[in-house]
Amino acid sequence: MTHRTKHKQTTFEIICVGNELLIGKVVNTNANWLAKKITEIGGFVRRITDVRDDLSEISSAVREALKRGTEWIITSGGLGPTFDDMTLNGVAKAIKRPLKLNKQAYQMLLEKYKEMFERGILKSLDITPERRKMAELPAGAIPLRNRVGTAPGVLIKFGRQRIACLPGVPAELMDIFENELLPIIQKSIKRVYTTERVLIAKDVIESALAPVIKEAMSKHPEVYIKSHPKGRESGVSIIELHITATAKSSERIEKEMEQVVQELKEKIVALGGTAEQ
Amino acid sequence: MTHRTKHKQTTFEIICVGNELLIGKVVNTNANWLAKKITEIGGFVRRITDVRDDLSEISSAVREALKRGTEWIITSGGLGPTFDDMTLNGVAKAIKRPLKLNKQAYQMLLEKYKEMFERGILKSLDITPERRKMAELPAGAIPLRNRVGTAPGVLIKFGRQRIACLPGVPAELMDIFENELLPIIQKSIKRVYTTERVLIAKDVIESALAPVIKEAMSKHPEVYIKSHPKGRESGVSIIELHITATAKSSERIEKEMEQVVQELKEKIVALGGTAEQ
Repeated sequence: MTHRTKHKQTTFEIICVGNELLIGKVVNTNANWLAKKITEIGGFVRRITDVRDDLSEISSAVREALKRGTEWIITSGGLGPTFDDMTLNGVAKAIKRPLKLNKQAYQMLLEKYKEMFERGILKSLDITPERRKMAELPAGAIPLRNRVGTAPGVLIKFGRQRIACLPGVPAELMDIFENELLPIIQKSIKRVYTTERVLIAKDVIESALAPVIKEAMSKHPEVYIKSHPKGRESGVSIIELHITATAKSSERIEKEMEQVVQELKEKIVALGGTAEQ
Repeated sequence: MTHRTKHKQTTFEIICVGNELLIGKVVNTNANWLAKKITEIGGFVRRITDVRDDLSEISSAVREALKRGTEWIITSGGLGPTFDDMTLNGVAKAIKRPLKLNKQAYQMLLEKYKEMFERGILKSLDITPERRKMAELPAGAIPLRNRVGTAPGVLIKFGRQRIACLPGVPAELMDIFENELLPIIQKSIKRVYTTERVLIAKDVIESALAPVIKEAMSKHPEVYIKSHPKGRESGVSIIELHITATAKSSERIEKEMEQVVQELKEKIVALGGTAEQ
């Protein structure tokens, strides 16, 4: 039922760390943003997991994702200086590597603190254990520069798999992802072309559309159609059809998409409804 | 690092099913809403998992949550009539029970369709295989009435564990949770009292606050403090401290909370910052 088995898209998992997500204090916009970015460049996000600031939960979530063979694991949150920022500890435990002071990360921290000190934000240049902690990375890791905040991002190669750890503060996560991680991901992932369309079907209910969708998908194996019921407007049911297609050639996939959309429109009209793009 | 080990709060996991979450099309507000509701009544949400509309992904996510011993598993999405609505199939596979036409659920569907037919929304009263599918529940399941949409919610007892399946349409999920599921959950979960406060610390950076937080938490084991950096305002760092406390007696926990807040304020001022509630 997934594209990926057919086109062998590179697989991703997103693991978000933070109690605030599990108590409903914060809506997980980081996962949404990352999933969109990864999908745009042709990656396949197979799972998103939110766990508490709990060492064994973090390490088991990472271990499970590695076991599933996922090629890229991206974590968000838990890189800061406080005791409950324990993502790197959890990752280190999952891959059985020690945490070590990373010289490059330490240098990045020193530069940050110096800059903050000079701007009067920081009152002392002391590298307390809490500050030093942000430069203690799993052995062999590569720090990723954080232009917005303090804690560097982290990239770890684990055999053929990759783990990237990003801060939970959205502006920092976005900065590191766009500027540091994206170029590395793009080099590493298999190229596929995806295209999408949205059809609004009115006056046909979802259970009547179901066999039409099924038929279109079995006729066009590169196409995936998902229906989203959008409620009713003056008694008329509205369903959004989200149509995606993935293939190795961009030309072929555009042509196939046009065909599917045309066929769906005709079927919806035949059922007594209307279809708009 | 978690409350729950101390107070044995009832554990919950939320599993959200839907490709739209994994491609970044939809922000997972359902998980946030459920997590908040569950936390409010004293439940402990340990994990949130988003999976694709994929049978083996759904069943393995459910199986993993059961294996972790989680007491309540709540799924959202994938209960509708289309081929990609496969949550009940995935749950049935995870608990090794067959899907069977549930008479009560079928009755609920018939009533819905009759009403829609009478209102002119439905053109035919035929119970197609796609419609019937929504009443095929894992053996032994109890349907939960859906006042908003068509697909009933589903409640399954699995030994001492419970699995509840809710539709992905937010209004339907909320309706079934509030009106059908909540009373059942409330009867089943252990009573604990939780209270929370927010302190805004200004002009002290997070790495300086870290040891203060650590000390307060070790002194007050029922209290959990999480710091959220909120950026800077005219050069002054702003950190939100989210303080939660959980205990069996409501009086004691309120008193302890007052104490913690007072202590934190004094420490923040001693560090040269300000603290506002």
